[in-house]
Amino acid sequence: MKLKHLVGLRFKERPADCVIESHALMLRGGYMKYVGNGIFSEFPVLKRITAKIERIIREEMNRIDGQEVLFPVVMPAELWEESGRYESVGSELVRLKDRSGSKLVLGMTHEEAAVQLVREYGQSYQQYPFMIYQIQRKFRDEARPRAGMIRVREFTMKDAYSFHTSQEDLEKYYEKCYQAYNRIFQRAGIPEVVTVQSDSGMMGGSVSHEYMLLAEAGEDSIVICKECDYRANMEAAENLVENDGGEGKKELTCISTPDCKTIEEVCDFLKSDVKTSCKAVVYQKNIDDSYVVAFVRGDYEVNETKLRNLVGAELHPAEITEDSPLVAGYIGPYQISDQVAFYCDRSLKGIESLVAGANKEGYHYDGLNLERDLPEITYYDIAKVKEGGICPCCKKPSITIRRGIEVGNIFQLGTKYTKSMKMQYTDEKGTAQYPVMGCYGIGIGRLAASICEAKHDDYGPIWPISIAPWEIHLCCLRSDDPQTKEVSDALYQKFLDAGMEVLYDDREGVRPGAMFSDADLIGIPIRVVVSPRNLKENMVEITTRDKSVKEMIQIDQSFDFVKGLRERLFAEIEEKVES
Amino acid sequence: MKLKHLVGLRFKERPADCVIESHALMLRGGYMKYVGNGIFSEFPVLKRITAKIERIIREEMNRIDGQEVLFPVVMPAELWEESGRYESVGSELVRLKDRSGSKLVLGMTHEEAAVQLVREYGQSYQQYPFMIYQIQRKFRDEARPRAGMIRVREFTMKDAYSFHTSQEDLEKYYEKCYQAYNRIFQRAGIPEVVTVQSDSGMMGGSVSHEYMLLAEAGEDSIVICKECDYRANMEAAENLVENDGGEGKKELTCISTPDCKTIEEVCDFLKSDVKTSCKAVVYQKNIDDSYVVAFVRGDYEVNETKLRNLVGAELHPAEITEDSPLVAGYIGPYQISDQVAFYCDRSLKGIESLVAGANKEGYHYDGLNLERDLPEITYYDIAKVKEGGICPCCKKPSITIRRGIEVGNIFQLGTKYTKSMKMQYTDEKGTAQYPVMGCYGIGIGRLAASICEAKHDDYGPIWPISIAPWEIHLCCLRSDDPQTKEVSDALYQKFLDAGMEVLYDDREGVRPGAMFSDADLIGIPIRVVVSPRNLKENMVEITTRDKSVKEMIQIDQSFDFVKGLRERLFAEIEEKVES
Repeated sequence: MKLKHLVGLRFKERPADCVIESHALMLRGGYMKYVGNGIFSEFPVLKRITAKIERIIREEMNRIDGQEVLFPVVMPAELWEESGRYESVGSELVRLKDRSGSKLVLGMTHEEAAVQLVREYGQSYQQYPFMIYQIQRKFRDEARPRAGMIRVREFTMKDAYSFHTSQEDLEKYYEKCYQAYNRIFQRAGIPEVVTVQSDSGMMGGSVSHEYMLLAEAGEDSIVICKECDYRANMEAAENLVENDGGEGKKELTCISTPDCKTIEEVCDFLKSDVKTSCKAVVYQKNIDDSYVVAFVRGDYEVNETKLRNLVGAELHPAEITEDSPLVAGYIGPYQISDQVAFYCDRSLKGIESLVAGANKEGYHYDGLNLERDLPEITYYDIAKVKEGGICPCCKKPSITIRRGIEVGNIFQLGTKYTKSMKMQYTDEKGTAQYPVMGCYGIGIGRLAASICEAKHDDYGPIWPISIAPWEIHLCCLRSDDPQTKEVSDALYQKFLDAGMEVLYDDREGVRPGAMFSDADLIGIPIRVVVSPRNLKENMVEITTRDKSVKEMIQIDQSFDFVKGLRERLFAEIEEKVES
Repeated sequence: MKLKHLVGLRFKERPADCVIESHALMLRGGYMKYVGNGIFSEFPVLKRITAKIERIIREEMNRIDGQEVLFPVVMPAELWEESGRYESVGSELVRLKDRSGSKLVLGMTHEEAAVQLVREYGQSYQQYPFMIYQIQRKFRDEARPRAGMIRVREFTMKDAYSFHTSQEDLEKYYEKCYQAYNRIFQRAGIPEVVTVQSDSGMMGGSVSHEYMLLAEAGEDSIVICKECDYRANMEAAENLVENDGGEGKKELTCISTPDCKTIEEVCDFLKSDVKTSCKAVVYQKNIDDSYVVAFVRGDYEVNETKLRNLVGAELHPAEITEDSPLVAGYIGPYQISDQVAFYCDRSLKGIESLVAGANKEGYHYDGLNLERDLPEITYYDIAKVKEGGICPCCKKPSITIRRGIEVGNIFQLGTKYTKSMKMQYTDEKGTAQYPVMGCYGIGIGRLAASICEAKHDDYGPIWPISIAPWEIHLCCLRSDDPQTKEVSDALYQKFLDAGMEVLYDDREGVRPGAMFSDADLIGIPIRVVVSPRNLKENMVEITTRDKSVKEMIQIDQSFDFVKGLRERLFAEIEEKVES
């Protein structure tokens, strides 16, 4: 391919609205174009990358006996009504009507379609286990699309669904898929991806893992233990707190705390430690706006995912009106209105004397002892883990928190979908049973952007050769010089004949600086530069995009050098792939 | 792949609601599953076929310098407002709103997205010509989905868009694409596809061609000249009529024709030839319900596509109410209400004396002479061509009419989209110009179903080897017989090691008849059957799905025989491909 024919514009200026580097570089390099909020078109450079990622994924899915299928993007609402998700999923599910008024949805995930496809096929235990997967477009009406291809509304996803006759069999397959995912990320050139325990969210099921690329630009918080292997998404991370009791029991006293609305203000005013205070965070249920109050130790934050799972309902931050049963700024667990559901976090356990709101305008309690004053109290795990926290695995205070981009996820779904959608098989004894399901997703565009995020410098992406748009970038620095052009053309043809992928820049009248900027933005791993100056010495320059190689090579050895370099770059990736 | 693991059910009973054979066979063979009206999921067998079709298409598009891109399925309405199609396209365009109330559409075609993607790239004449294409899902809210994968609402389509600086350059490229399309259908094993002139419909533009697979089950009527190369879709076919004048001029007379509402009843009553009668067919414009009357010779039918193009508006069959300016059953061109737009077809030209409605309840005119009685009359081409009609090309009365399935189309779009969407380039002289566009589509699933329609027998599809789900179907007729199993397993491994695609049926306890039925439904071109009976003779049976080969081959020669047969089947397809 000649660069002068490549559809896509490259430019120098960093677009103003880019919060992360991969977004800026992929716009600047002519990878993609904004079409609408969270909606992009892909230029040929990106399409070549995603095609290679898709090929790797297909090979690895086939390797673990996956069979490729295709589900529709647009589905009848009835399918989602069967599973109950037509009602339960929020407005990220696009609901629409066709010309005859029939209700449809846009597929944001395809558990329902998967069950519908194999419901008849999977009627005998002899058919199990099996796994089907697709690579298909999805639409999820995200409230806040951001960061280029990282969080979009429309995206291409590989989603796989496995079906089993027992939890044990699912777990065995889950482990295989876990390995296949490792291989995919290793082959795509980002072996540094880690797995973390995660929350299952709207998918249902119990065990689930996310594959995280640790990156400052990530929107997920990852809880990592520095002493053991424990890793979890903040959403799912268990929070352990040890309280020493504080200053000992005191009498419960109601104190005037005028104008102290935040827990910090109260503690300042009372000169007490925020670690012996009880902070209230108020939500309302989406379905009926009823109030839900989470109480955590003053220095902790509420983990809304864990709270939502505990409550079993979608929540939003509360608006406290004058006629509500809550007194904003003065909410505490003692004598709180019985119209309000409240939950106390474990971080409050064992503190003998707490400062907490008195549910009365301008007053707080001091000396609150939850065990004494609320005899039936239960503690829940609803707070966020903190830096330096206690690892739930090795119990050492060795928790650190990092940012990550989720590049894949795997879920053990159990029988949530097979039960609700009445998919059954007959077991060896002739008894009807519900199959157990797993599901496994990778967002293709997000993976491409994540690789860019992990592998770039100030000038552009540094694509691993396995997914690079081309393998070799050939620059003819002076197409108007006959000898330079001739040597370049001959090399181009030789690379092509050898089946290598070459992008050939033979543009006339383009300065070397501009050519190199373009090459940096396209990020092809091997660069071959033919120039009149080097030709005088009978040399061409061969470099790698990551600057690890920079050599002057005799013309007649250049093809072999590139061939060897190309093989080495592929081998370096293969070396990191688990067998 | 072992058949026993293949996801998908095969069954014997023909589903009741199938109007065409490919639909029935593809349901019976476990190719696809109904999800909703005009919406299907694809099982692995079909996915393998469509993947091969997609590969052929990609290769041919790349061969004519196409660059693969990807446009979104969901697009902001503004994009379609720019081109004017948000308003002009009917309810086949799905319009929806997102969570914030922004208007979106589901992509049914991507001219707007293509222009949006390259609007900045294509600003200089030096970038031209170029062609971009994608393979992507589309949704078109068809009023009447039918015939399985032939007319669906959601489908995968290859759509290509070329951009040029002149009509001449477009025509040059159009010719290249025409050849590429021929190659695609030849490589997919249906060289019998023909091209026909077609109507451009909502796409706009002038010249367009459709690729038609002639098949009784097709929903298109194709006008073909038996004497020359003329071929056109009925929608676009020019209708030539020669009238000899009839019985000569007569005086215009108003005659009572009680209870004669159809033109046949009137002609019967008056004992006149239907070929000297004037038939009225009444429509209303979709936008304002105003009446449009088409007059054709009594023995012709109105070509609604040509009428719609002439009127320049969408039409629907009229409902004639009591207060309308028309008298149902008695409508004629003479003294018709001036509230009504009417058009006379060429088939009426030259008839000296016509029978026509008198626009008065219970009366018709006889002796109507259009040139004499309506001095300003213009004739239009708005009737359907008939069997035995005159060829517009060679002028012989050699027209025949066949049915066809449209498997692809190519359009010369002109500047319709670049003008409306303000895409311009600067030419050599520094002048701003609008690029000229072409577009080129192939529906992947429809092509697969069409190949099935063209290549099947009563027992299943007969897939051409180039797109068959697998190349070899290996049957072990008695897996419980150790020798049979051993020979089969060894052959299976040998085929796999040689890189051939094999589906291996080693199911235990399945009768040979059931195995062969399954093999017929899966339609793999080469079949190898290993059975205890033939092994006694040291033989295996090798046949082709189309029954052209049926041989008993020595076991030790069987691999080479299959290898040779496979190469021959590929060669037979390649032979038909234009270079």
